[in-house]
Amino acid sequence: MTQPQPPSTGIAWSRGAFIPAEQASISPFDFGFTRSDVTYDVVHVWDGSFFRLEQHLDRFLASVAALRMVLPVDRDGLREILTGCVSRSGLRDAYVAMVCTRGRPPAGLRDLRRCENQLLAYAVPFVWVSEPAAQVKGVSAIISSIPRIAPESVDPTVKNYHWLDLERSLFEAYDRGADTAILLGPDGNVTEGPGFNVFAVTNGRVATPDRGVLEGITRQTVIDICAERGLPVEVRAISREEFLEADEIFMSTTAGGVMPITRIEGRILGNGAPGAVTMSLREAYWARHRDPRDGTPVTYEESEMPSNGLARQKELIPAG
Amino acid sequence: MTQPQPPSTGIAWSRGAFIPAEQASISPFDFGFTRSDVTYDVVHVWDGSFFRLEQHLDRFLASVAALRMVLPVDRDGLREILTGCVSRSGLRDAYVAMVCTRGRPPAGLRDLRRCENQLLAYAVPFVWVSEPAAQVKGVSAIISSIPRIAPESVDPTVKNYHWLDLERSLFEAYDRGADTAILLGPDGNVTEGPGFNVFAVTNGRVATPDRGVLEGITRQTVIDICAERGLPVEVRAISREEFLEADEIFMSTTAGGVMPITRIEGRILGNGAPGAVTMSLREAYWARHRDPRDGTPVTYEESEMPSNGLARQKELIPAG
Repeated sequence: MTQPQPPSTGIAWSRGAFIPAEQASISPFDFGFTRSDVTYDVVHVWDGSFFRLEQHLDRFLASVAALRMVLPVDRDGLREILTGCVSRSGLRDAYVAMVCTRGRPPAGLRDLRRCENQLLAYAVPFVWVSEPAAQVKGVSAIISSIPRIAPESVDPTVKNYHWLDLERSLFEAYDRGADTAILLGPDGNVTEGPGFNVFAVTNGRVATPDRGVLEGITRQTVIDICAERGLPVEVRAISREEFLEADEIFMSTTAGGVMPITRIEGRILGNGAPGAVTMSLREAYWARHRDPRDGTPVTYEESEMPSNGLARQKELIPAG
Repeated sequence: MTQPQPPSTGIAWSRGAFIPAEQASISPFDFGFTRSDVTYDVVHVWDGSFFRLEQHLDRFLASVAALRMVLPVDRDGLREILTGCVSRSGLRDAYVAMVCTRGRPPAGLRDLRRCENQLLAYAVPFVWVSEPAAQVKGVSAIISSIPRIAPESVDPTVKNYHWLDLERSLFEAYDRGADTAILLGPDGNVTEGPGFNVFAVTNGRVATPDRGVLEGITRQTVIDICAERGLPVEVRAISREEFLEADEIFMSTTAGGVMPITRIEGRILGNGAPGAVTMSLREAYWARHRDPRDGTPVTYEESEMPSNGLARQKELIPAG
């Protein structure tokens, strides 16, 4: 028997070549850095299949167009690059990112229309935003005093890296002994948190904010599941007051799926245990990963795959 | 006689070493990129001297502290690194940037407090944001329909790369045949443009917005010059209406100093010629570059310096 391979740290595609992800780099002169003039998307691979890949491609291509950028490849070429990153990495569970930066204008110019837009893609090991053990227990959140950047200034449906409001709200959460933060919009209604959408469940009705938020693929999956199960679901404004009085609250994100929040602003929800609707949606979310409608299997190049040690943690994921 | 050296493209300092600026890189996994969790400053070198270096260091160190970051060097160490970039580049006229990114947390963690903050510095050739010929002629601007990111969400006095609102406003300017754009705040008052502060001159009184703007060093230099000359200068709210009816409008930025705007929203100011107050302040601004209070001379390592071809353009700069 040969020695087991060390865990892969991932594979990137940059400037036409596949390279170890750790060698990927961005020029500090790219406007994607100096002006955060960049859009991106992250799809995940689970048990060797992309989850809802086409929806992520739809959103990314729409974001690229909204920023008036042009990718160096078409949709098929992009899919091929993403698949190439995963198959070469050997990762069965991975985050797969696609990033388009504005690039740089020719020397001496500043015209954005003259920039050559740059594509970067990479597959890296799946890491929980919150570990399964914590997911079953539930996390604690505050309502941040910092308002989310207004959608009139920066469109949150174009997935972007403008996170300074979210970063400051995380420090505020740390200071107050919480795990994470949820931000209100300039209108005082609930928006989202650092990297996740939020849902409230009241009297068996599920609701998620309609405005000032990323239109998350996991958020949409939850909406789809509710619709299929005949569970009432509404996309509408949610006030701070309504949110704080909900029976259950949960977050949704590609980086972990459906995750219960059991403390909000010090208030303990459901005696500190995740709610029944939340846990049922969480189970259905992971069960969807076995639905052929949502999966795009990856063909791997090698037969022996490095493991990233996630199998153990998967025990806490519902079998569906 | 030896062959003239090719123009230097600059020198960077990264991870403890001086390298060619073009080799500098940012990790695409640094939160400074994926969350634009970064602050920076840019000081310029003119005729071999930093201009107002200590004021730039003051602002940068305050920004780093505001984001709860820690530099790997102290103020003296930072000054030494910046000077090292310039002296090694040989550049007599340069932009000198200092950039502090959040960095990355240890593998598997997401806690911002565990990130090792990263410093990058570089000196690159001075390039006009608008060439001297255009500066004498004046540039055209629109008032953007996109509001500037609110200061409650992202503090503009902490110099940052959250530019998507500014980038969109530039495309709006291109679409309307203008050179650049000026943004209003969520309150409807004038703020700033992509990379510059703005001033209005009405009946010999100079005014600049007090809120929702970067506290520019060039802006402060203009305020100082006005005060020294007994020219009335006010830092206060300026409505869209007042701004559009001003006798003169100009912008201020490290990347070009004081530059007249002669067209705003299609209206031609002063028959299309830069105003007398603007041109007098522009002259005084460049004259300040010979004032020992504001200059920090760089000691260069070599006697023969590469030129970046700026000398020719300097003919259009007032002798002061």
